[in-house]
Amino acid sequence: TTTVSRQVKKLTIGLIPADGIGKEGARQVLEALPNIEDSPSFNFINLDAGFEYFQKNGTALPDVTLEIMKKECDGALFGAVSSPSHKVAGYSSPIVAMRKHLDLYANVRPVVSVASEKDISQKHVDILIIRENTECLYVKQERQIIDESTGLKVAWAERKISEYASRRCGKMAFEMALGRDKLRQSIPLEKRLWKGKPKVTIVHKSNVLSITDGLWRETVRGVKENDHKYDSVDMEEQLVDSMVYRLFREPHYFDVVVAPNMYGDIISDGAAALVGSLGVVPSANVGDNFVMGEPVHGSAPDIAGQNKANPIAAIRSAGLLLEHIGFHQQALCIYNAVDDVLRHGEILTPDLGGKATTQQVIDAVIKSLSK
Amino acid sequence: TTTVSRQVKKLTIGLIPADGIGKEGARQVLEALPNIEDSPSFNFINLDAGFEYFQKNGTALPDVTLEIMKKECDGALFGAVSSPSHKVAGYSSPIVAMRKHLDLYANVRPVVSVASEKDISQKHVDILIIRENTECLYVKQERQIIDESTGLKVAWAERKISEYASRRCGKMAFEMALGRDKLRQSIPLEKRLWKGKPKVTIVHKSNVLSITDGLWRETVRGVKENDHKYDSVDMEEQLVDSMVYRLFREPHYFDVVVAPNMYGDIISDGAAALVGSLGVVPSANVGDNFVMGEPVHGSAPDIAGQNKANPIAAIRSAGLLLEHIGFHQQALCIYNAVDDVLRHGEILTPDLGGKATTQQVIDAVIKSLSK
Ligand SMILES: CC(C)[C@H](C(=O)O)[C@@H](O)C(=O)O
Ligand SMILES: CC(C)[C@H](C(=O)O)[C@@H](O)C(=O)O
Repeated sequence: TTTVSRQVKKLTIGLIPADGIGKEGARQVLEALPNIEDSPSFNFINLDAGFEYFQKNGTALPDVTLEIMKKECDGALFGAVSSPSHKVAGYSSPIVAMRKHLDLYANVRPVVSVASEKDISQKHVDILIIRENTECLYVKQERQIIDESTGLKVAWAERKISEYASRRCGKMAFEMALGRDKLRQSIPLEKRLWKGKPKVTIVHKSNVLSITDGLWRETVRGVKENDHKYDSVDMEEQLVDSMVYRLFREPHYFDVVVAPNMYGDIISDGAAALVGSLGVVPSANVGDNFVMGEPVHGSAPDIAGQNKANPIAAIRSAGLLLEHIGFHQQALCIYNAVDDVLRHGEILTPDLGGKATTQQVIDAVIKSLSK
Repeated sequence: TTTVSRQVKKLTIGLIPADGIGKEGARQVLEALPNIEDSPSFNFINLDAGFEYFQKNGTALPDVTLEIMKKECDGALFGAVSSPSHKVAGYSSPIVAMRKHLDLYANVRPVVSVASEKDISQKHVDILIIRENTECLYVKQERQIIDESTGLKVAWAERKISEYASRRCGKMAFEMALGRDKLRQSIPLEKRLWKGKPKVTIVHKSNVLSITDGLWRETVRGVKENDHKYDSVDMEEQLVDSMVYRLFREPHYFDVVVAPNMYGDIISDGAAALVGSLGVVPSANVGDNFVMGEPVHGSAPDIAGQNKANPIAAIRSAGLLLEHIGFHQQALCIYNAVDDVLRHGEILTPDLGGKATTQQVIDAVIKSLSK
């Protein structure tokens, strides 16, 4: 039967540590997953990419990495990539390239605070940011010319917004809003933090970019307006500047937030400041055929190799990966184990004000998993 | 003598209330300025612009408004502009157009917290954001095409970054960093909030936009590297996503921040959340020949006409206008009077948690001016 075949399912996961603080925690946690329901087992393949790899081999993303992901992997976990501080000829960000080549069109970034038992003053935040992941300024169509009258340089970049990409990203936002609402139904009303209808906030700057952001706005609105399935979801809009302002003043005002690529990049880092540290914010790059987990934080070269980096973003990203390939129960196990460690507030890395090492946090999560 | 002629100087200020919460406070405060040193007197000319004006007259910025500013005014004060929530054919933001037509190439946005005597817990913030004001996505070169294979819409916007605009904006940042440092010298070291060398933080996203933001970054860096005048100013960089994260975690880390137009728009609204309300954050649109004060907040249609809007952003913008046309002492008078009212924390509008009306705050500032 299907159940039996799922029970013995082995998932092949591509591991791309890339630069700096890597993927160790996520692997260990996946391997320690208790055998609930139809849990998969895992097979990991190490894959190359990144700035360090570029420096040795002249490319930041070897073809073989993409090929193996497409042919052999059920999903992937990416570490973080270093950005050279100066322009390096021939170098181009491998994460941006992978999103494009694997058509991972939505970047799903849940930003959730877990109030520690020690710090009940913290505002509760539970926002799901859906970032369009393939276009906007990330199409990287840039050119430089010399203004002949002055001899000075003038550079141009193209920003692309398509109906096609906006629609599927918008659809993802409304679907996830329904999904979150369904999960909430299992919590008694008085304990729910979000008591109203699910809500999607559309971010744009159509007061300046009336054509591109106008198309984004209209298309995302159209997703709801043309499908009764989403009748139960509220929809509202925020200009990107007001969005950032409001995010900091009233984070509990937001449920699902959907944004074009660059705004989404900025908003999600900003939201991370609300939950204590970038070190706890995961993401999943989601397409119709592939999912790649990726912590929102960077490669943090200053703390790499010191056993100090917070592994939680990477661990939660592994949870997101499972969630988006259909293993909801297993994902929930990971989220709960992480929340448990955060709630106790005893074993935390320095970014959260603690003194624990990376491995101690990983061990604590694994211990909590098996409770 | 020059002194005498300056003493009797009459400044002509264009007043453009535009939409929603307007310029009343700034005018009253300017008129109440005490006659210190070589104080000017004022002459106001009311000028039209805005969305309401567009709805009646088919244009958001009549030529005559620009002409009078250019020919008759020494500076201007802008109110705020409504953004229609949907696309309106023929409408285009008048503030963006004025910045371009008057070549107001830098938008100077000081974000300063004044700890109220009642709330000493507030983190101190004192950041000067210099936003490039003429290009980036604000060149508004957009087009929409139909993808013939799918029949779907695809829209494109151009983002322009020029060496010319980046350099003059960068120069403004380093000049203002020196200016702030000079002002600080008059404060005893132990009382200074910023004790180190002045610092300019350059915001960009050159890990993705290597050509456009690469040119921005290099050009702004070049301003310091090519001029010993700025040897005493530290320079550092932040990717725009990290910038927003860090802004919220360590606002005291920043002194002067210089950013391309769109990033600057987002960062300044974000920074406003750190100082209690958008209602206290002013700006000046500065060019070589003209200055226009403008509160950072929007037109707030929900509270317009109710005597509830915070007039402080507009009043401080009048101070900035004076500062940038050379009346430093008079500007300082305005800033101090406002700080005084905020520090007392008795007469505050609802956005700051108070119950005072717009006019009560204006009156309090005027009272404090004449102390
Ligand atoms: C490293 C960089 C190219 C990347 C991005 O801008 O998308 C990162 O900031 C992220 O958010 O994943
Ligand atoms: C109204 C809008 C066009 C404007 C801008 O984006 O510049 C506003 O947000 C501002 O910051 O002055």
